[in-house]
Amino acid sequence: MADYIPSLASVDPQQFGMAVASNDGEVQVVGDCDVSFSVQSISKVFSLALVVANDGDQIWRRVSREPSGNPFNSLLQLDQEHGKPRNPFINAGALVVTDRLHSITGDATAYIRALVRRESGNPHIDGDPHVARSEGQQGHRNAALAHLLASYGNLECPVEAVLEQYFWQCSLSMTCRELALAASFLSRNGIRADGTRLLSGSHAKRINAVMLTCGTYDAAGEFAYRVGLPAKSGVGGGILAVIPDRCTICVWSPALGPSGNSTAGLAALDAFTTRTGWSIF
Amino acid sequence: MADYIPSLASVDPQQFGMAVASNDGEVQVVGDCDVSFSVQSISKVFSLALVVANDGDQIWRRVSREPSGNPFNSLLQLDQEHGKPRNPFINAGALVVTDRLHSITGDATAYIRALVRRESGNPHIDGDPHVARSEGQQGHRNAALAHLLASYGNLECPVEAVLEQYFWQCSLSMTCRELALAASFLSRNGIRADGTRLLSGSHAKRINAVMLTCGTYDAAGEFAYRVGLPAKSGVGGGILAVIPDRCTICVWSPALGPSGNSTAGLAALDAFTTRTGWSIF
Amino acid sequence: MADYIPSLASVDPQQFGMAVASNDGEVQVVGDCDVSFSVQSISKVFSLALVVANDGDQIWRRVSREPSGNPFNSLLQLDQEHGKPRNPFINAGALVVTDRLHSITGDATAYIRALVRRESGNPHIDGDPHVARSEGQQGHRNAALAHLLASYGNLECPVEAVLEQYFWQCSLSMTCRELALAASFLSRNGIRADGTRLLSGSHAKRINAVMLTCGTYDAAGEFAYRVGLPAKSGVGGGILAVIPDRCTICVWSPALGPSGNSTAGLAALDAFTTRTGWSIF
Amino acid sequence: MADYIPSLASVDPQQFGMAVASNDGEVQVVGDCDVSFSVQSISKVFSLALVVANDGDQIWRRVSREPSGNPFNSLLQLDQEHGKPRNPFINAGALVVTDRLHSITGDATAYIRALVRRESGNPHIDGDPHVARSEGQQGHRNAALAHLLASYGNLECPVEAVLEQYFWQCSLSMTCRELALAASFLSRNGIRADGTRLLSGSHAKRINAVMLTCGTYDAAGEFAYRVGLPAKSGVGGGILAVIPDRCTICVWSPALGPSGNSTAGLAALDAFTTRTGWSIF
Repeated sequence: MADYIPSLASVDPQQFGMAVASNDGEVQVVGDCDVSFSVQSISKVFSLALVVANDGDQIWRRVSREPSGNPFNSLLQLDQEHGKPRNPFINAGALVVTDRLHSITGDATAYIRALVRRESGNPHIDGDPHVARSEGQQGHRNAALAHLLASYGNLECPVEAVLEQYFWQCSLSMTCRELALAASFLSRNGIRADGTRLLSGSHAKRINAVMLTCGTYDAAGEFAYRVGLPAKSGVGGGILAVIPDRCTICVWSPALGPSGNSTAGLAALDAFTTRTGWSIF
Repeated sequence: MADYIPSLASVDPQQFGMAVASNDGEVQVVGDCDVSFSVQSISKVFSLALVVANDGDQIWRRVSREPSGNPFNSLLQLDQEHGKPRNPFINAGALVVTDRLHSITGDATAYIRALVRRESGNPHIDGDPHVARSEGQQGHRNAALAHLLASYGNLECPVEAVLEQYFWQCSLSMTCRELALAASFLSRNGIRADGTRLLSGSHAKRINAVMLTCGTYDAAGEFAYRVGLPAKSGVGGGILAVIPDRCTICVWSPALGPSGNSTAGLAALDAFTTRTGWSIF
Repeated sequence: MADYIPSLASVDPQQFGMAVASNDGEVQVVGDCDVSFSVQSISKVFSLALVVANDGDQIWRRVSREPSGNPFNSLLQLDQEHGKPRNPFINAGALVVTDRLHSITGDATAYIRALVRRESGNPHIDGDPHVARSEGQQGHRNAALAHLLASYGNLECPVEAVLEQYFWQCSLSMTCRELALAASFLSRNGIRADGTRLLSGSHAKRINAVMLTCGTYDAAGEFAYRVGLPAKSGVGGGILAVIPDRCTICVWSPALGPSGNSTAGLAALDAFTTRTGWSIF
Repeated sequence: MADYIPSLASVDPQQFGMAVASNDGEVQVVGDCDVSFSVQSISKVFSLALVVANDGDQIWRRVSREPSGNPFNSLLQLDQEHGKPRNPFINAGALVVTDRLHSITGDATAYIRALVRRESGNPHIDGDPHVARSEGQQGHRNAALAHLLASYGNLECPVEAVLEQYFWQCSLSMTCRELALAASFLSRNGIRADGTRLLSGSHAKRINAVMLTCGTYDAAGEFAYRVGLPAKSGVGGGILAVIPDRCTICVWSPALGPSGNSTAGLAALDAFTTRTGWSIF
């Protein structure tokens, strides 16, 4: 578990939930699929999708889309590459994406909240202020990243505002069922639950590609090898995976392996694609 | 072009060829599809497949399968990770794979040659001694990598033998048509041209996964984003891509972009998946 | 010149001053020796001396004393060494020293100001609020360092307070004559101008040793080779050098070389030790 | 002890010797001052002195003189700085110095042997073939460095010849008394035992400066702080120190501290300068 966020350290590590949301709207569930947990980095998928939806490919001038090859919050690489984060799913890249979303919309929080509420059908989803606050207190490392980005001129909003927005989105509290539904636009070529389009088909595919190469910290290669699906994990123990044109899957179990991914979640997805043959490869 | 290998610097950069080998055995071709070129790093796919075919997952004790996040022949990362290369497609990793193949078979060259000859149907495919020799002369950097691997105890054969085998396989001279055919087992779940099995379906998928995350030097994320296919490129200007359950594609054009991948080859594959919609995402 | 601090970029680069303060109290001067300039990193010598005077060798638990082998404000090394800066003269180390001085005294600024005023005999020496403020505005990189130190638990005071104290001391405005006099305790084995002791003889020698190995950014080896004296430079164009048991020297000329040291200042000191033979080697 | 060189691992770690050679020719000794040991990296002082004596400051085009800030045999830094080693006392730098000496003289070994024999007065000093051979067997890391240097065009002689010369000089077997005498030209401003000049006074001072900033691996700052003398250590347990215009000191005790310097040798030199006050600061 992520013991650097005190609020997360008290979660019962024995829990396990899984939800599979088919493109036709059905949801199959197992275990603790309706227990809310802290989505943490999984939120980065939603902020990236909203920026791409509003701004197209502009964001790639400010963030690369290469795997990091280094622990997920490395300052070194950011500095060597002159303030351009390696990808939107490492913390530095997510800060830039959040900055851009906040700059475009004036309120990143409101836009992310509206998206996950509408797609999941639960109008009560929200951030957890205790988690957000404890991130803030422990957040010197993210503050260092944000100031370094600012020193390279790669933030539009003030450092404090970006950090506040970032901590809020990481604190979002959702269930497996809600997360699988909320991300279904990624397996439906960009189409929302109500049939309208959030992203072009090409952009949806491309976000899946970034998830596959960069979505699971420094274990993206291992994850692609064992599971073979685009996915994004969070230190709250959740993993969101996409099977294009078929379904989305969310697993959750709080105990984390050495790379920061849920141990049971990874094992469940490995078993799932081995049995179904639904790897993308 | 790879001007550090003198024999390659004299190739006409205006050439372009492409071949698509369907799983049913048909080959569609375009342009200079029957001109032989130096396969260079594309050979790493064949040596990896042969090691996995003979040895299963043992090789992953000695080589990781994470994207490198650094130029393809970095000594730094190898040193930081105590002599375990990041993946089998960076030079250090390919040296370990070659070492293992040579150690298992007693003659890595003979096994690779036999595989590409039989699958492509051309019994005359061979290494180019001029290219191999000029690699050898210019090969101080690869020699440094091999000695560093040896210093960490991660080579079984003598440094000189491993380098000789490695330079030979990089010097293999093949056409687009031959390469597409030779790699068809990757789009056919591990089945050879004659219907026998080289790899289990699961291992074939997994080699595709490694190609997607690690196959195009430090542009794997960019390549996945734009093309969306497992692929392996070489500094000779070739790119080999796999569409699982459908076909393999080989493009070739000698002029290289900043990441060492063929510029025209990348553009052709981008256009191909955009038109066909055959990205895996 | 240090164009990242706007207030410094407007200084006339043609100026040159030099002052030699003998241990017997005489001062020999040349050129613009009475023009005030921004001492910048030279202030780090005074804060270190005050911390050692008050706290002995405790500070070395929190800061190493090895040359950095990297540009002077590198985040990489700080991160690799888990928040323990390489030495007290790189920015990260100076932030820790300032933090400690502020923590011991309750007012680092007052203590530094009192020291330089009393030793130089000028009761009007002070920080330049314009410079301090422009450091603060441009200071995202130092803020990143301070937050990174805090993330490793290596700051006692709040990040904002440490930065404020740090920016103030860098903004100190002094002349060559004043700086040479203010640092005379280093050539007098720790004895102040009034004959009382600031530092033990051993501690004075040791601060000189740290100046020699770490005082001139990433050119300490070059500086030792050419000049052969303990010294500390600043991006305001000043260099303070010590000849133990004999004198202190301050040169100033605003134009900086590639390593951030005054070009004319370095040349003057090189000529000085070549002619006098007063190198310590 | 340096257990990577098997021949050194069998030396009795309890031994301790010390010799002080005054500029007037007298030698004061203590303990095991006449036991021969493997000088290892201390030999780098002699090869550097011979290159500077023959070639002046030319060598600095190919080797820098900055402290390394990294473990003594780091490949990373060499690669980042495009094959120009940080200083002549890290392994990469010493390989370049040896290469140059061998290139100038045609026989680096003969020149080094002649120097140490003549200055120490013992015509039987020689390399230890067992040690040289075990270096050679264990020497993959040095071979990696040499090939990397060659890949950047920074070797004149063949890799194998440079390595052979390098391993030989490291294997030199000398006593404390002999080493102190052999290096006396460094405390005598470049004058040999017979009164003739090996180095200009300025070059002798400058080699002392390089010893102070770079002579004791990644503990140069610590060593300057505690001992305050130019020095060069070796993994055989020897440390050679210079007090300019006064004497040279050689201590030897095989047990090494974490930075690769003799633990008892460092303590002895610390006590020596504390008692005598003969630090250069």
